Amino acid sequence: MSKTSITVAYGDGIGPEIMDATLKILDAAGAQLDIETIEIGEKVYLRGGTTGLEESAWDSLRRTKVFLKAPITTPQGGGYKSLNVTIRKALGLYANVRPAVAYYPFVETKHPNMDVVIIRENEEDLYAGIEHRQTEQVYQCLKLITQPGSEKVIRYAFEYARSYGRKKVTCFVKDNIMKLTDGIFHRMFDEIGKEYPDIEKETWIVDIGAAKLANSPEEFDVIVMPNLYGDIMSDIAAQISGSVGLGGSANIGDQCAMFEAVHGSAPPLAGKNLANPSGLLLAAVMMLQHIGQPEVAARVHNAWLKTIEDGIHTFDIYREGISKQQVGTKEFAEAVIDRL
Amino acid sequence: MSKTSITVAYGDGIGPEIMDATLKILDAAGAQLDIETIEIGEKVYLRGGTTGLEESAWDSLRRTKVFLKAPITTPQGGGYKSLNVTIRKALGLYANVRPAVAYYPFVETKHPNMDVVIIRENEEDLYAGIEHRQTEQVYQCLKLITQPGSEKVIRYAFEYARSYGRKKVTCFVKDNIMKLTDGIFHRMFDEIGKEYPDIEKETWIVDIGAAKLANSPEEFDVIVMPNLYGDIMSDIAAQISGSVGLGGSANIGDQCAMFEAVHGSAPPLAGKNLANPSGLLLAAVMMLQHIGQPEVAARVHNAWLKTIEDGIHTFDIYREGISKQQVGTKEFAEAVIDRL
Ligand SMILES: CC(C)[C@H](C(=O)O)[C@@H](O)C(=O)O
Ligand SMILES: CC(C)[C@H](C(=O)O)[C@@H](O)C(=O)O
Repeated sequence: MSKTSITVAYGDGIGPEIMDATLKILDAAGAQLDIETIEIGEKVYLRGGTTGLEESAWDSLRRTKVFLKAPITTPQGGGYKSLNVTIRKALGLYANVRPAVAYYPFVETKHPNMDVVIIRENEEDLYAGIEHRQTEQVYQCLKLITQPGSEKVIRYAFEYARSYGRKKVTCFVKDNIMKLTDGIFHRMFDEIGKEYPDIEKETWIVDIGAAKLANSPEEFDVIVMPNLYGDIMSDIAAQISGSVGLGGSANIGDQCAMFEAVHGSAPPLAGKNLANPSGLLLAAVMMLQHIGQPEVAARVHNAWLKTIEDGIHTFDIYREGISKQQVGTKEFAEAVIDRL
Repeated sequence: MSKTSITVAYGDGIGPEIMDATLKILDAAGAQLDIETIEIGEKVYLRGGTTGLEESAWDSLRRTKVFLKAPITTPQGGGYKSLNVTIRKALGLYANVRPAVAYYPFVETKHPNMDVVIIRENEEDLYAGIEHRQTEQVYQCLKLITQPGSEKVIRYAFEYARSYGRKKVTCFVKDNIMKLTDGIFHRMFDEIGKEYPDIEKETWIVDIGAAKLANSPEEFDVIVMPNLYGDIMSDIAAQISGSVGLGGSANIGDQCAMFEAVHGSAPPLAGKNLANPSGLLLAAVMMLQHIGQPEVAARVHNAWLKTIEDGIHTFDIYREGISKQQVGTKEFAEAVIDRL
């Protein structure tokens, strides 16, 4: 198998440790990767960048088109743009895919049967960054929803459902209030849905959908929605599934894709061999599927699952009576490698 | 005690039944009310109104300044404005107060210790209704946040916390992305918070806050936030507390106030003596506090609580082993009256 070039960034805080663990596991699993490393995040911001990413890094991303990214820290104070949002837009990453799965009883959760994938539109909505101060006391932000943008992410969601054997796609919107913007998203959902007669479809007003998701997430399968709702719902889903520490995410574009953990850089844990590398590792599994190495992806995923089921847990999911052994980042990675 | 004039609307669906039950209980409890009845909702829409509320009804609302409102049905099809949003704006109801309390073990919930009050800004944000189609494929909606609007609801939240002996006020915003609009809300929270040194303060980015709320609502006390986040969070809170059927809400303005259940008009249940009147009744309790009849409010609230604790439950919260008796709307009201 020929190697696939990918770009890797170690990020800030716990980033370097979990990236190290992840890459060791991928290597041991036989992933065929040619790795280019770039620097992103805090140091780059503090060197004077406003986006936390330099030109040479962009070159690498445009060349490899595949980005495995560790969490970064944005320095305190104003004037810094969100690196994530910048990358999503620059690379046209229109769909953000975030699975949230319960691993009960190995990981504690009140929702043992949940297995939901939230697919959020990733470029538009209030994230378009159009905001201004209209008078001294009046501030405005533009929510932008386009028909092609909605169509793309909705089609992606249905294709995703079909290729992973999922039965239902749900749409969340608030088109009783936003009849045009959320209205077009809803209309595209209904229209494109017709092309997928094999898949069940439903739509909820976002407040009611959110309440259902928080209360009975096991009722959902794939959920597609505009950017900001997706931001909120994917955090809810990750948290109630048992741990944000286990959430991986894929940002998908026509040309490029970026894979990262759902959680942040957790500076207080940095350098202590404490962090759970699972979120980034599961993002890497999605990356391996994306670049056409599904067997390696399955091998890594199964070994990870076995490690969790064997009760070998980092501190964040450690639980007396269920966990067998509390381990650090490195030891967790070794345990996964042993089970490959 | 002299009587207070209030305006009452029986609404649609289960509205008439739960209003009837509520008013019977208030009367039996000795509430001093002079009731003006208006017609709102589906019939008014279908007579050709776009807002579901006629001029004579507005007259009554402007005269009494206190509105006890049952849920309504908006007819299917386009062109109808949300009656709720219209009333909130027309009467300047800037704060929407929604308590969500667990009544475990009498009402099933995964979060037995939750007792949170969500206070949402009620006039601005994406609800300002400024939306347009910019090109054939591009739609925009304006999110509007003002300094005075933010200040008012935030001050209300702190005053509320103080007068009900609550210890903490939390603010939810997304000002890492919306630095101006959500930024001003956050800044006003910090500024006004300084006037309340006796109350603990904290702020969460809304996605993280939402995840915490869905996972461990008992960590919150009062939460204040812009309109749309509040819409979503208050539905989540009501649902995970055990039942949206138990949620009452107050919409507060400088001149006027409106009190209603959180749930909708549930047409399939209408006319069957099945509906749970608790949401509207608890809204009425808030109304009694608001109009200066706190003793009657306490009497009603205690009798209601006793009814729930005695296991006298409508079908929606009935549970084998916990509930003692399944009753209809009328019988539930009688049980509350027996306990006054
Ligand atoms: C960091 C922030 C800009 C980002 C977002 O809002 O999209 C984050 O919350 C996420 O969900 O990836
Ligand atoms: C009916 C709808 C306009 C309303 C809202 O979005 O505010 C409702 O969801 C609510 O929470 O009162």
